[in-house]
Amino acid sequence: MAAYEELSKEELLKIKSELEAEFEQVKAQGLKLDMSRGKPSTEQLNLSMGMMDVLNSSSDLVCEEGVDCRNYGVLDGIREAKQLLADMMEVPKDNIVIFGNSSLNIMYDTIARSMTHGVMGSTPWCKLDKVKFLCPVPGYDRHFKITEYFGIEMINVPMTPTGPDMDMVEELVSTDPAIKGIWCVPKYSNPQGITYSDETVHRFAKLNPAAEDFRIFWDNAYGIHHLYEDKQDYLIEILMECKKEGHPDMVYKFSSTSKISFPGSGIAAIAASTANLKAIREQMSIQTIGHDKVNQLRHARYFKDIHGMVQHMKKHADIMRPKFEAVLSTLEREIGGLGIGSWLSPRGGYFISFDALPGCAKKIVAKAKEAGLIMTEAGATFPYGKDPQDSNIRIAPSYPTAEELKVATEIFVLSVKLVSIDKILESK
Amino acid sequence: MAAYEELSKEELLKIKSELEAEFEQVKAQGLKLDMSRGKPSTEQLNLSMGMMDVLNSSSDLVCEEGVDCRNYGVLDGIREAKQLLADMMEVPKDNIVIFGNSSLNIMYDTIARSMTHGVMGSTPWCKLDKVKFLCPVPGYDRHFKITEYFGIEMINVPMTPTGPDMDMVEELVSTDPAIKGIWCVPKYSNPQGITYSDETVHRFAKLNPAAEDFRIFWDNAYGIHHLYEDKQDYLIEILMECKKEGHPDMVYKFSSTSKISFPGSGIAAIAASTANLKAIREQMSIQTIGHDKVNQLRHARYFKDIHGMVQHMKKHADIMRPKFEAVLSTLEREIGGLGIGSWLSPRGGYFISFDALPGCAKKIVAKAKEAGLIMTEAGATFPYGKDPQDSNIRIAPSYPTAEELKVATEIFVLSVKLVSIDKILESK
Repeated sequence: MAAYEELSKEELLKIKSELEAEFEQVKAQGLKLDMSRGKPSTEQLNLSMGMMDVLNSSSDLVCEEGVDCRNYGVLDGIREAKQLLADMMEVPKDNIVIFGNSSLNIMYDTIARSMTHGVMGSTPWCKLDKVKFLCPVPGYDRHFKITEYFGIEMINVPMTPTGPDMDMVEELVSTDPAIKGIWCVPKYSNPQGITYSDETVHRFAKLNPAAEDFRIFWDNAYGIHHLYEDKQDYLIEILMECKKEGHPDMVYKFSSTSKISFPGSGIAAIAASTANLKAIREQMSIQTIGHDKVNQLRHARYFKDIHGMVQHMKKHADIMRPKFEAVLSTLEREIGGLGIGSWLSPRGGYFISFDALPGCAKKIVAKAKEAGLIMTEAGATFPYGKDPQDSNIRIAPSYPTAEELKVATEIFVLSVKLVSIDKILESK
Repeated sequence: MAAYEELSKEELLKIKSELEAEFEQVKAQGLKLDMSRGKPSTEQLNLSMGMMDVLNSSSDLVCEEGVDCRNYGVLDGIREAKQLLADMMEVPKDNIVIFGNSSLNIMYDTIARSMTHGVMGSTPWCKLDKVKFLCPVPGYDRHFKITEYFGIEMINVPMTPTGPDMDMVEELVSTDPAIKGIWCVPKYSNPQGITYSDETVHRFAKLNPAAEDFRIFWDNAYGIHHLYEDKQDYLIEILMECKKEGHPDMVYKFSSTSKISFPGSGIAAIAASTANLKAIREQMSIQTIGHDKVNQLRHARYFKDIHGMVQHMKKHADIMRPKFEAVLSTLEREIGGLGIGSWLSPRGGYFISFDALPGCAKKIVAKAKEAGLIMTEAGATFPYGKDPQDSNIRIAPSYPTAEELKVATEIFVLSVKLVSIDKILESK
C-alpha cells in the first residue's frame, strides 16, 4: 500500500470517507473495550487458583527457619520466599528483602526514605534545593508519578532500541550532582518491550555519578515474562555487574510476583548491596513488625522453586502470545507501509508501544474513545503526562478476550488512520 | 506481710538470703522464658485456622462491588472489608480506608507523609525547624521509635488512671504550635491497660491546638480485646466526638486485626474525616495500586460481620483471662503489701504494667534475665528508651503457656524482691 503522504488530496478524502463509514458502524455497536492498563486477563488469573488450596487449616504454617508464619516475627522475609525471589531476580538470597504485595510501594518508600533520611547517610533530599531524576521515555507512568509527587525534577532521556541514550545518561549523571536517580524497566520495557543490550548494562554499571547518593532504580518487572520459549531476550544481571565495576551500592533492583500469581496479592522484593539493605532494614524495623509471612509461605509452597515458576510463566505466555500477535499482525496489515505510525514487536512484557505522527496521539486516543475503546491516556508515558511530540500511545493487549481484542485493535487502527489523514491533509 | 521498708536491716538480710537460695534453684534449671512482646500464643493462633479454608480454588473471588479480588483495582479497600472494620472501629464505612497488614505501617506512613507533604496542605514538617509530639508515658515503644526516627522531639505526659494528664495536654497543645501530634492507645492502653475516661475523651475532642496541623494519633489497638464478658471498659468514639466539637479533622484513628486473626497476616485500617481521607488517598494513589484484596475478602468472609468477630474475641478472652489472672494473683500474693511495686488490673489488652521502686527497673530486668526470663527492656515504655524514674516494666503474659507463665512470674517476683531489698538496704 502506498504511504498516505504520497497520496493526493482527493485520494485521501476518498479513503477518509470510506474509513468514516466503517468507524460509524463500529461506533454504533456501543462497545465498551479497555486496552489501557497492563492487567492480566481472567484466564491468566485462573492459572494461579491452585494457590488458594496450597495452605489449609491442616497445614503446618511453620517456615524453614522454624518460625510460625501466623505470628509476629521475621522482618525481611522468610527463607523460602527469599530463595524463590532471589532465583527469580538472579541475585544471592542474602541480597534480597521481601516486602508486601507491591514493588511500586517499595519504590515509593525508597524515594520517601531518601527524602527524609538520605541514602546511606547522605543529606536528606528534602534538605536540598533541587533533586533530579532521569526518565527514559517513553516509560512507566507510575514511576514518574512518584518522583513528581515528591517534587523531583524529571529529565527526559530518549529510549533507543538498545535502552536509554547512554551518551546522554553518562554526560548528565557524571556532571550534575543534583541527579539522584534514573527510572529503568530494563527488560521488556514498559511500554516499548525493549530489553537493554549488554553494552547498555555495562555502561550503567560503569557510571561515575557526580552524586554519591545516585541510584539506578532497576524495576525488573518483566524478568521472566516471556512470550516465546525459543525467542527470549537476555538481560545482564545488574547487581553483579555494578559490583564488578566497583559500584556495588549504585543500584536498587525491584520485582514482584504481581503478574505471576495475583496482582495485588503477590509478594514483592528489593535486591541491593549489603550496605544498601542495612539502611533499608533500619527503616523497615521502624515502619513495620513484618510483612505477610503466610502469603510468602503460600507463594513458596505453591511454586516450590524457580523451575515451578518458569513452568507457570509458560502458561501465561500461551495466553499472552496470541494476543500480542493479533495486535501486531493487525497493525502490520492495516498500517504497515502507510507511513503513519511505527512500533516494535516485543518478545515479552505487557505492552506494545505505538508512535503516531507527531501531534496525533491525543486525537487518536480521543477518537478511539468515541467508539468505546479506552486506551492509556496519551502523554502518560512521559513525565508530567507531557509527550513533547504528542506521538506515543501505549497498547495493553492482556486484559481483553481474543474476541474483544480483535474489535479493539480494529477501532484503534481506524482511529489512527482517520486522525493521520486529517493531519496529512492539513499540509496538502 | 509487712512492708520491706519497715523491716530492720537484719530482717531484710535474712529474707534476702532465703530469696537468693530460691533464685539460684530456679536459675539452675536453665530456663528460657519470654514475657517481652505482646504476641498471641499458639493456642490463640489456632483459633483462626478456619481462615485458611474460607477461600479455596472453587471460591468466587469477586467482591460485593463486582471486582475480581485477584486482579488490580480498588485502591482503598473492598466494601465488605470496609464494613467489617468500620463496625469494629465504630465509624461510618465511608470514613475508613483499608491498608495492608500493619496499622503501625499506616502510622509510619502518616508521619512520613506529614514530613514530606504536610497535613492537608500545611507546611511539610521537614521544612520546619522543630516538630514535637506529646507522648503519654508509659506508652508503646514502637510509637516512640517512629517519631524518634523522624527527629521529632518527644515530650513525656504522665498517664493517670483516667488517661493522659489532660491539664498538661491542653496547656501544651494550645500554646505550642510546634506540637503536631500526640500518641494515644486509648483503650486497654499499652502497657497499663488503662481506658480513657469519658471526661478525658471529651477534653481531647475539645482541644484547641495552636497548630492547624495538629492531629491526635488514636491507636485503638485493643478496641474489642476484652478479658471479661461482664466487666468491659467503654471508650467514647473519638471521630464523632471531634466532629461534634467542630474539630472533625483533628484525629486519625488506627486499628487492625493483628490480634484477632493472624498478626502479620491481618488487615489494617485508618479512620478519619472525609478531608483527611482525601489527602491520604491522594498519597496512596501514588504509593500503590492497591493492597491485598484477597486477604481482605478472606477476613470478611471468615468473620462475616462484627458479631462473628465479637464471638471470636470471646475465645481469645478465654485463653488470655487465666494468664492475666495468674500473673496478677502471683503479684498480689507475693508482692502485695511489701511496698516495693504497684500495678493495675486491666480488663483487656495485652499487658500488665509494673512500677518498681525508682531506680530498680533495669536491675530487675537484668536479674530476671540471669534466670532465663526475657522481659521488655526497661525504659522501652518511654521515649528514647529513657524512663526518668527507671521504674516501669511491661509484662506481656500472652505468649507463654500457663505452665511457663507460672515459672516466669515466680522469677519476676523473685527478681523484684531481690533488687528492691538491695535498694532499701542502701538507705538503712
